[in-house]
Amino acid sequence: MTEPLPLGSTIGILGGGQLARMLSVAAARLGYRCHVFEPGAAPAADVAADWTQARYDDAKALAAFTKSVDVVTYEFENVPAESLDLIETHLPIRPARAALALSQDRLTEKQGLNDLGVATAPFKAVETVEDLDAARKAIGPDGILKTRRLGYDGKGQVRIGAETSSAEAIAALAGAPAILEGFIPFTTEVSVIAARGQDGEVVAFDPGENRHEGGILYETVVPAKVPSRLTTDAVLVAGKILNALDYVGVLGVEFFVTPNGLIVNEIAPRVHNSGHWTQDGCITDQFEQHIRAVAGLPLGDGRRIADVRMENLLGSDVTRAAELARDPSAALHIYGKTEVREGRKMGHVNFVTAR
Amino acid sequence: MTEPLPLGSTIGILGGGQLARMLSVAAARLGYRCHVFEPGAAPAADVAADWTQARYDDAKALAAFTKSVDVVTYEFENVPAESLDLIETHLPIRPARAALALSQDRLTEKQGLNDLGVATAPFKAVETVEDLDAARKAIGPDGILKTRRLGYDGKGQVRIGAETSSAEAIAALAGAPAILEGFIPFTTEVSVIAARGQDGEVVAFDPGENRHEGGILYETVVPAKVPSRLTTDAVLVAGKILNALDYVGVLGVEFFVTPNGLIVNEIAPRVHNSGHWTQDGCITDQFEQHIRAVAGLPLGDGRRIADVRMENLLGSDVTRAAELARDPSAALHIYGKTEVREGRKMGHVNFVTAR
Repeated sequence: MTEPLPLGSTIGILGGGQLARMLSVAAARLGYRCHVFEPGAAPAADVAADWTQARYDDAKALAAFTKSVDVVTYEFENVPAESLDLIETHLPIRPARAALALSQDRLTEKQGLNDLGVATAPFKAVETVEDLDAARKAIGPDGILKTRRLGYDGKGQVRIGAETSSAEAIAALAGAPAILEGFIPFTTEVSVIAARGQDGEVVAFDPGENRHEGGILYETVVPAKVPSRLTTDAVLVAGKILNALDYVGVLGVEFFVTPNGLIVNEIAPRVHNSGHWTQDGCITDQFEQHIRAVAGLPLGDGRRIADVRMENLLGSDVTRAAELARDPSAALHIYGKTEVREGRKMGHVNFVTAR
Repeated sequence: MTEPLPLGSTIGILGGGQLARMLSVAAARLGYRCHVFEPGAAPAADVAADWTQARYDDAKALAAFTKSVDVVTYEFENVPAESLDLIETHLPIRPARAALALSQDRLTEKQGLNDLGVATAPFKAVETVEDLDAARKAIGPDGILKTRRLGYDGKGQVRIGAETSSAEAIAALAGAPAILEGFIPFTTEVSVIAARGQDGEVVAFDPGENRHEGGILYETVVPAKVPSRLTTDAVLVAGKILNALDYVGVLGVEFFVTPNGLIVNEIAPRVHNSGHWTQDGCITDQFEQHIRAVAGLPLGDGRRIADVRMENLLGSDVTRAAELARDPSAALHIYGKTEVREGRKMGHVNFVTAR
């Protein structure tokens, strides 16, 4: 058992968006400083002790950042491998590289999950029109062609139906290596946010039920309206993944609920939008839980103490903030982003009931 | 009714200690930036967008600070009047000067409270040994001689008993204008934290029961074990003071519970240590409530949703943090102060039960 990070230590966070912002506040509450590394605008910088604005491939800036911090974590999984190599020669990265490697590539991720005995949608690697034709034959008419790397919130994806031209679909991804995922008819999407500490302890939050609009998460509701058997299954799958990866930190696992049980859609090796409800629904929220794990503290109590509906404030939704402030059930979380863009995550609100 | 402060606006905070730190986090959650002005070390700076380190009488620094913010509030009441004059020529200060003027001087405060029909300990202004002798005759043998201005947590105070030498007591205060307060035999000290919005709405938190050690707050417990009649009285007194001062923001009122009812000990025109329990015991805590008022947002829901015992982590108590993190009922709030000194407020922990 390692000693916890001493009070006053600095946690480096790769990425300076809203997840880093909420991690930074949680870290401060536990007595730690944060240093965010973010090439673009950094809403996290307003609540972080330090901010380095530099590209992820700026070796000099990365080296200085690494020197100034005691441990490194991240708010998004697409940090270049070379940057992580550079950091890792000096400092631990938590969660460790294995989780990043798994989640950075949709093919590796699905293969890795299947190797653990975790069900996913059927999939085939696709690089050429011929690959796609073969994959469509094997998987069936309905599917989604996704780039193996990058892409999120519906970006880098093409819906495939019986009438879709394989050539056009491949062209739409501009030659990026991809996978075809069979389309899963599901009733609901749920996600489990779970944490694993440095001592191997696992704490899972209650599964939330997610609804998307235009490929972007719109709301998460707890408790999820799924049979309790599936709730248990979901938590067990999350625990299996955490243990297999010797994971330290918070992991998000998205599931499709199907007539045949749960199918993992994807995993995120970080705090997750569908876990924002924990800020007002749990004793310890996902951000503090992540910092506790990264800092080597015991995990906190993840029990749910209220019903919550988390709603994302997308784009100009954020102008509703003052009006929402009138609702006694609404807990506001605004990200401080200066530029409003359509579909951009500007904040969220937790509607809390049944406390 | 004024418009709320637009999202992305900057709130200036005079003082950069733990109160400013927790105010800054609350402001960020509501979409505001904070700029702290603090001559010394600033635990708040780690979670604030900007920090000016300068003396309160540095007119140039104050002018630049004032230019960079949209409204000014404060975490402590002893900012020099000249500094406030300078700020106020450009910007509103919330809570307004009347509250500061009242609370900066113990004589003015007690006179002002009595003028409102609010009971205080008997008191007399004292500057000389002769004044003190006369005051002791009027008030009785037991009392506390306090400097009129400054002094807190037991500093600038002399306990007066039948055997005390007036000359020595006066000498101990080194010529500072003072008041003699009659000693009040009380069973309990309770405090009410209440907020008033720009529209005049008043929201009060449940009274907390305070215990001190060596003149420093050691713990606050809610619910307070006092008759509900006194709870109502305490809230009504707080509301009366807020309205009389046309107050905007959070006010702390400390009461002695005596056989003859409530006596106001002192008021603090700011968020207050005895209100830290609200962070884990209420839907909207005192810090967000203060920012809402200052920003012209509607006040939040102040209802208590749990029983809480807040314990201050004084000096080396803060080394218990990692051990406290094991207790599922304990919510940690560490202030990030680098230097541990005996009796220094390093953090607090809210023990939350009966949710």
